[in-house]
Amino acid sequence: MLVMAHLSASFSAILRVRVEDRPGAFADLARAIGDAGASLDAIDLVRVEDGVKVRDVTIMASDAEHIERVATAARAVPGVTVERVSDRVFLAHLGGKIEMSGRLPLKTRDDLSIAYTPGVARVCMAIAADRSAAWNLTSKRNTVAVVSDGSAVLGLGDIGPEAALPVMEGKALLFKEFGGVDAWPLCLATQDTEEIIMICKAIAPGFGGINLEDISAPRCFEIEERLRAELDIPVFHDDQHGTAIVCLAALLNALRVVGKRAEDIKVIVTGVGAAGVAVTYMLERSGVRNIIGFDRQGALWKGRPGLTGSKAAYAERTNPEGVQGSPNDALRGADVFIGLSGPGAVTAAAVRTMAKDAIVFAMANPTPEVAPEEIADVVRVIATGRSDYPNQINNVLAFPGVFRGALDARASTITPAMELAAARALAAVVGGDELGPDYIIPSVFDRSVAPAVAEAVVAAARADGVAAR
Amino acid sequence: MLVMAHLSASFSAILRVRVEDRPGAFADLARAIGDAGASLDAIDLVRVEDGVKVRDVTIMASDAEHIERVATAARAVPGVTVERVSDRVFLAHLGGKIEMSGRLPLKTRDDLSIAYTPGVARVCMAIAADRSAAWNLTSKRNTVAVVSDGSAVLGLGDIGPEAALPVMEGKALLFKEFGGVDAWPLCLATQDTEEIIMICKAIAPGFGGINLEDISAPRCFEIEERLRAELDIPVFHDDQHGTAIVCLAALLNALRVVGKRAEDIKVIVTGVGAAGVAVTYMLERSGVRNIIGFDRQGALWKGRPGLTGSKAAYAERTNPEGVQGSPNDALRGADVFIGLSGPGAVTAAAVRTMAKDAIVFAMANPTPEVAPEEIADVVRVIATGRSDYPNQINNVLAFPGVFRGALDARASTITPAMELAAARALAAVVGGDELGPDYIIPSVFDRSVAPAVAEAVVAAARADGVAAR
Repeated sequence: MLVMAHLSASFSAILRVRVEDRPGAFADLARAIGDAGASLDAIDLVRVEDGVKVRDVTIMASDAEHIERVATAARAVPGVTVERVSDRVFLAHLGGKIEMSGRLPLKTRDDLSIAYTPGVARVCMAIAADRSAAWNLTSKRNTVAVVSDGSAVLGLGDIGPEAALPVMEGKALLFKEFGGVDAWPLCLATQDTEEIIMICKAIAPGFGGINLEDISAPRCFEIEERLRAELDIPVFHDDQHGTAIVCLAALLNALRVVGKRAEDIKVIVTGVGAAGVAVTYMLERSGVRNIIGFDRQGALWKGRPGLTGSKAAYAERTNPEGVQGSPNDALRGADVFIGLSGPGAVTAAAVRTMAKDAIVFAMANPTPEVAPEEIADVVRVIATGRSDYPNQINNVLAFPGVFRGALDARASTITPAMELAAARALAAVVGGDELGPDYIIPSVFDRSVAPAVAEAVVAAARADGVAAR
Repeated sequence: MLVMAHLSASFSAILRVRVEDRPGAFADLARAIGDAGASLDAIDLVRVEDGVKVRDVTIMASDAEHIERVATAARAVPGVTVERVSDRVFLAHLGGKIEMSGRLPLKTRDDLSIAYTPGVARVCMAIAADRSAAWNLTSKRNTVAVVSDGSAVLGLGDIGPEAALPVMEGKALLFKEFGGVDAWPLCLATQDTEEIIMICKAIAPGFGGINLEDISAPRCFEIEERLRAELDIPVFHDDQHGTAIVCLAALLNALRVVGKRAEDIKVIVTGVGAAGVAVTYMLERSGVRNIIGFDRQGALWKGRPGLTGSKAAYAERTNPEGVQGSPNDALRGADVFIGLSGPGAVTAAAVRTMAKDAIVFAMANPTPEVAPEEIADVVRVIATGRSDYPNQINNVLAFPGVFRGALDARASTITPAMELAAARALAAVVGGDELGPDYIIPSVFDRSVAPAVAEAVVAAARADGVAAR
């Protein structure tokens, strides 16, 4: 049954098969698919020919190569011909995942005269007289630009703007589904910091916010900082702050589970890119005092030769004891490990040297920094970025609600207090009686999350004086 | 009845009224509205209170001030209280006219694993390996950016990017309704030529085409020319080429009506901005030899002092007889007048000096260069930009079909032959037996237009070798 756990809709395929019309023929095929380790999903009859039934058989496999093995096994069944193997993920992506829809009818001349000329001219003039009227009279009110340069996409790296598009379209889907936000992707054919800043400033009039996405460090820090200073709409680099919000929410609940205080814990962070830096700073704002960050060269300590920019600033304000060396060494006695790096960043043996009631967030995707199975016996709370373990740390728990709240408040920016409020609201969705080592963070499909986060963000925006509503 | 002709849905309002519940009370209100010159549209009962009926009464008026007069008249009716007057055009614009919609479900974990991580990663890698796969696997295939800097919006001028948004959203609605194209507006907070070019190039990866809109001359010429040279997707400045295509189509049919040949006619054009220049050049490509353009200083002739840039180039290739002076003088003996300027550009008296079977396209909106009523007795064919006269020259007859065709052909650019094909296809929608002075161009609601234009554009793209499909 273990193998079943890895069968996934993200590796499923539709086999178009011609099956001889004799008793037991389909059973043979089904058995061959099962023997190849795949599970049968939908079975549709396409057409009946003379002595042959043509069917679309959907299977779930564990990876792309597994799909091939299943097809080969099906081809080997006597009386079965495989006409075509269609990858369901690719089928789903044909023509893209998003579209533009009208919110007004356009069927009659009256419709046209209201939505376009001549009626639209009065609306234009009202906005020309008072720019802020655009918030009421255009889609700006509910629209966010999802801007990426394709330089740090998922765990895939610098794959360019075209290849980043499917991720940004997926993000737009999530924005709409969970936050009711209209997001449109803009994948940029430039990785120049100044150009990206200029472009975001130029497109801002039509958007109520900008979600920066998958832009590599350290450029992402300057781009976001400059845009926050120079624009009057919220700018939010999700890889930084989305991750930080969800991570903090999970940590707040994990600390409740183990009965430790933020002020007292020692935290090891591997990976000081966009996510690692933001998570660290957010933990600091929540009272954590002892955080040590690691890049591939080891600990970041004040005075480490060669540190510049964001890493030098990081070393300046973290690691109060000036720890040097590897994360494995530093894990001894630590209360929390947060992995925002890659598989193998720490060893299971090192995790075993952590303090009692250790908390491990191993968020590298798809392969965590350390395999949960290898540390389950010594660690009290484990979270990952994956959906097939308990406690999935997923940004979709944050960004839809954050922007829903920011747009509802007509916020001019996202303040640290708004992010903190989002994290606390997210943590609070898990009730005291539900809380436990396997449930520190809500499911991504918990529909109460985004409204709760949005409400907290609105309140914090008003308290900070950045809300126009 | 003349006043009725000017009542318009674009100047309609909803009066929320409290009417005393006695026989004849509503009739008094209805009569007052009629006496004020407005027409009654929908009448909805909102609620019944003690002795009072609350109704929403929709009226159509002729302008914003007229709505006020009607409300005042309603308030004067005994037993009637007007609670609120809501402008229907503004009501329709609340929250904007467009939204983003998903094309995939996102209700289950399987949905999520297909549309987003981990499934999406394989789609990203497929595009990273072959950029052109983005045409199949993303929304690029069907999406056009509507880019404006708000510098020349409708007849309103330089009203800025926010105020331009309602027009661009309207454009997006038209794209979808008539061409099935997903368009998203980008209103830019810059009017710098180089910046606009850079931005369009940067956003191009996610779009199958760029529709430039309402960018003032002469910047629009350089922006479009440079983008056509430097991008591998179609770029189309609608104010130039959309207008030119519809204008040429109308002229081809008008010439059939009067029995003249393009080669023989003398054409007067007032206004040599984006539209005037493009219309002129397109007429030349269709065989017209004698075109004289006029700006506010008079005729453009080769050698006129002070001419630079696009106007100098225009003077160089038009006006073969070197005509100087005013358009009124030049109209004597002319066969065609094309107004792309403003009201009063020519006089009715001058139009009366045109050749027999004169053709007048007076396209200034909402007030034509010369009132059709004043020249109807001497001119054979009249077209305007308005929907309340016959022969409306409206760009919506061109751009949805042009982009539908360009996207279907996966064209890398829009060639002059594609534009010419679009104009001819548009003209051909009017059958020989339907053709007449009052019907030289199809209605904007003729659903056969966009498919006919698209088909012609696809064929021309293939013939020109710019189609990838």
